[in-house]
Amino acid sequence: MPGKKDFVVTPYEVKGRIDYERLREQFGTQPVTPELLSKLRHMAGGELPPALARGIYYSHRDLPALLDGYANGRPFFLYSGRGPSGPLHTSHLLQFQLCQWFQQRLGVPMYIQITDDEKFWSSKTGIAREETAHWGVENLIDILALGFDPKRTFTFFDSRSIGALYPLAIRVARKVTYSTVKAVFGFDPSTNIGLVFYTALQTVPAFWPSWAEGRAVPCLIPCGIDQDPHFRISRDIAEGLGFPKPALLHSQMVPGLLGESVMSTTGDRSDNALFLNDPPATVERKVRNAFTGGRATVEEQRRLGAVPEVCSIWALWRTQFARTEAEFVEVTEGCRSGRLLCGECKSRLLERVQAFYRSHAEAREKTKEWAESTIVTAAPKPL
Amino acid sequence: MPGKKDFVVTPYEVKGRIDYERLREQFGTQPVTPELLSKLRHMAGGELPPALARGIYYSHRDLPALLDGYANGRPFFLYSGRGPSGPLHTSHLLQFQLCQWFQQRLGVPMYIQITDDEKFWSSKTGIAREETAHWGVENLIDILALGFDPKRTFTFFDSRSIGALYPLAIRVARKVTYSTVKAVFGFDPSTNIGLVFYTALQTVPAFWPSWAEGRAVPCLIPCGIDQDPHFRISRDIAEGLGFPKPALLHSQMVPGLLGESVMSTTGDRSDNALFLNDPPATVERKVRNAFTGGRATVEEQRRLGAVPEVCSIWALWRTQFARTEAEFVEVTEGCRSGRLLCGECKSRLLERVQAFYRSHAEAREKTKEWAESTIVTAAPKPL
Repeated sequence: MPGKKDFVVTPYEVKGRIDYERLREQFGTQPVTPELLSKLRHMAGGELPPALARGIYYSHRDLPALLDGYANGRPFFLYSGRGPSGPLHTSHLLQFQLCQWFQQRLGVPMYIQITDDEKFWSSKTGIAREETAHWGVENLIDILALGFDPKRTFTFFDSRSIGALYPLAIRVARKVTYSTVKAVFGFDPSTNIGLVFYTALQTVPAFWPSWAEGRAVPCLIPCGIDQDPHFRISRDIAEGLGFPKPALLHSQMVPGLLGESVMSTTGDRSDNALFLNDPPATVERKVRNAFTGGRATVEEQRRLGAVPEVCSIWALWRTQFARTEAEFVEVTEGCRSGRLLCGECKSRLLERVQAFYRSHAEAREKTKEWAESTIVTAAPKPL
Repeated sequence: MPGKKDFVVTPYEVKGRIDYERLREQFGTQPVTPELLSKLRHMAGGELPPALARGIYYSHRDLPALLDGYANGRPFFLYSGRGPSGPLHTSHLLQFQLCQWFQQRLGVPMYIQITDDEKFWSSKTGIAREETAHWGVENLIDILALGFDPKRTFTFFDSRSIGALYPLAIRVARKVTYSTVKAVFGFDPSTNIGLVFYTALQTVPAFWPSWAEGRAVPCLIPCGIDQDPHFRISRDIAEGLGFPKPALLHSQMVPGLLGESVMSTTGDRSDNALFLNDPPATVERKVRNAFTGGRATVEEQRRLGAVPEVCSIWALWRTQFARTEAEFVEVTEGCRSGRLLCGECKSRLLERVQAFYRSHAEAREKTKEWAESTIVTAAPKPL
């Protein structure tokens, strides 16, 4: 039924089974086309990361102009962030893996925002400031351990970087009214004034390098499509402040292990996601119990095949864990044809996940030594 | 007509002829009684400053408890601030002169907030950030030049002190809702999110010493009665955050030279006030043209006397320029009896004002050297 609203996607709520194509049309963004992917593959030396190759990043705003600029000698920078309320789970890494790929292939700077203030303000469960500060550091280490270059990576850790952010935040906040944030985020009068203010700080990193360097430095923000409204505000006010509009590259959401549209663990749903600090036995239990697209009996599955599109395990292969396109096709075809049963598929994935956890833990140890040195604390200019 | 609302007093608007006693009752504050003044006089070694002795500071919240605490060995600190949109005029000095008196007599610390962010956010005329930053420094020098002790005086210059303020502002902002600031300040949806957030930063200095020292340090805020709503928010949330409620000491507003209730120069009314950077000829012109309580003719005035209560010149004698109570009584009686005519009274006041300007300019030169050293830039703790 066209126009029927059977799902909700806002920065603070995702509900229902999402029709991503319809969502893209509602938001008025551009599709990621084969031509655009081919241009990207060429720029990056012949390869694409899984999430781009497999259509997870499916929508954008102004990406072609940004890439053309890069090709013509105008480098851009990447910006992404994390609201630290607990340990990361694997799907939180999606946007950072893409950023790391861009940085490695194109040599561009990366700016990470850790929003320990916003998570305190937005928490409905009354999370303590000590917790958001603690998880901020832990999450940052996990992100950097994906292979970011310490020399080209800069962190705005809100409570500690406020001196660097605030002079620009003052200018940004002057341009945004309460009625705008009310409409975009669905705030009501009981919203605290920290959260009302917050979008100003979330916008600052998109303009910060241009401000610091005194020239237009284009910005690319890879994010879940649910975060698009946040950055629509940034785009709306950019030119009035003399900065380029940030380009956006939007991903679909990674489905949860319990069969929901999003790997969210709000409420009591910790089994919906694989946390990076889950011990091996927990990871195994969660994968074994995960919702799949399998049939009621082995016999039926051999005969009819399973349905990867609804399977949370297939989603993990697709978004992050199939290393090559050949492997991804093999798993997908095995599933659809009935050759690969769910138990075996889970065992194979589990091996891959555990290997990732081991190598990530190792990288994490080394990253700890320099993670905090990426935190920016000083403003480049007073005004 | 009791209950008739013929004046308006909010932090962003003062209109009509103010009935201060009725306003105090509306706000629910306590009167400054002769007993309280006598206690203060005793504590301070026998004297009171003009603004206390002459009833300008006429209302308070919780002042007796704060003074009793001081008498029992529990020192408090003073907090006052300035929104820097242009040069100070003489009535801006009122609250700081009182603070300086308290500091000198009781040896207590003074915290000054310079709100260069808030003035940018609240400006209806589109003041530039460069201007609020510039006037912030100029205003600070003027304030400190009143005789503050560099060793006991600390400045939060918002854009430069945000690193010191923000960790506590995060906690404060979580406690204040949009509906509260809407009700208190009369904001509407077109208000920018900086101004919505601002009251959090204005509250922080009232708690900052307690937070920094990890023990309850009482706070006294001398301010115009129009600013009471701001600090009612601070008082409401204090105990929930583990800090003592700040005590308040409220002044009446200084009438303007043009005969209005307030020495405000909003709009095109620069002749309503004596700016500290007015050259001597301008000061003279403004005083000569000032609205008085005199009669239509000299003859009539000799016969009937003049009316000090409506006179802007008398208000200057009363609030700041009569040095002793004897002088104040002499001027007042001279006016009322018809002995002192307006021209002569203005000449006498002018001499006093010009002498103040000369000594202030001298003190200012010396203060310039150390004013910026009072600015606090680091937080005492991370959370």
